[in-house]
Amino acid sequence: MNRHRFSEQEREGVYRAIAERRDIRHFLPDDIEPEVLNRLLKAAHQAGSVGLMQPWHFIRITRKQLRDDIYHLVEIERVNTAKALAEREDEFMKLKVEGIRECSELIVVALPDRRERHIFGRRTLPEMDLASASCAIQNMWLAARAEGIGMGWVSLFEPQKLSALLNMPEGSRPIAILCLGHVEAFYQKPMLEQENWAVGRPLDEFVSENTW
Amino acid sequence: MNRHRFSEQEREGVYRAIAERRDIRHFLPDDIEPEVLNRLLKAAHQAGSVGLMQPWHFIRITRKQLRDDIYHLVEIERVNTAKALAEREDEFMKLKVEGIRECSELIVVALPDRRERHIFGRRTLPEMDLASASCAIQNMWLAARAEGIGMGWVSLFEPQKLSALLNMPEGSRPIAILCLGHVEAFYQKPMLEQENWAVGRPLDEFVSENTW
Repeated sequence: MNRHRFSEQEREGVYRAIAERRDIRHFLPDDIEPEVLNRLLKAAHQAGSVGLMQPWHFIRITRKQLRDDIYHLVEIERVNTAKALAEREDEFMKLKVEGIRECSELIVVALPDRRERHIFGRRTLPEMDLASASCAIQNMWLAARAEGIGMGWVSLFEPQKLSALLNMPEGSRPIAILCLGHVEAFYQKPMLEQENWAVGRPLDEFVSENTW
Repeated sequence: MNRHRFSEQEREGVYRAIAERRDIRHFLPDDIEPEVLNRLLKAAHQAGSVGLMQPWHFIRITRKQLRDDIYHLVEIERVNTAKALAEREDEFMKLKVEGIRECSELIVVALPDRRERHIFGRRTLPEMDLASASCAIQNMWLAARAEGIGMGWVSLFEPQKLSALLNMPEGSRPIAILCLGHVEAFYQKPMLEQENWAVGRPLDEFVSENTW
């Protein structure tokens, strides 16, 4: 018996979290227990990062006024996105694309300043900082699912404006507004499929051998 | 009892995969079973994506010559990175930063062409395609850990050259060379810590409230 083996149930837990994780916009008002929130942040922080640069920063939003300001920033971008979508404008405006006012925890994730010092694995691909931070967010998403907590990643915002609102240092950049909270249920399918916005295509269309 | 709850063991499996996932460069020669590889790709493909755009493509490298060509591309960038690191050049050159010739499966992940059609969640943050693809790769990494399979993400390459080598369409872009295979052991700590290249900083330095 190999020491690094997972039990069947541990392995199934991983696949279950991957399969049942959803981008959540509907929340119950109940608080998240502080130790649960701490486990989720720890899960994020355990992500690998290019050259071990740990390119992430988590800002927990606890001030009501700040949450409202963030909501309004997102609302402006929601309208701008709808206009940019042209013929699908009305359809888009009917979608629920965020749960900022309802979720019990609101966390902004940002890439830190002074990332240019980190060359390892980024000389030709500087955007690997965002890749690492995204892996951290995915860890948090899966851990949240395992805890029965819903999480949504909102990317409808003007980064400069959100940065100013949170007094972020020059060179840093917000990449996510995360909404977290207890849920009535996890969506059976991605919400954009449930709402007939889009249909996911099957895996075999995304795999090829030796060439595109 | 809430239907969406995980059992204790399922939940522990998720946290264990997150804690024990490593960026692997040392592989055993044994093949990965086709059904395992398929489960890993399926795990990747279950990631959420901004506006359900599914911005990923997986190219499985099975031709020996192509694997050698990719190895040489990475070797060129490894030397260029070492030079760019200046005073740490010699130290960097001693690190094992890839396992391309030893791993049993080599997979290139790319962002597909025609991503500009997808506006949802990307109008102000176009790089959310890379964020979604990174979440897919993290799913694969955690599933691999649960299967006892090691995976390494190599980002030391010139994207245009790798793109040309694989006849990728204009507008697409490679973001990862993934090395996968069975392992003797998973590193106890991130390899860059084990090799004294860098020391990870603790979570509390990365969390703040309402401001930076």
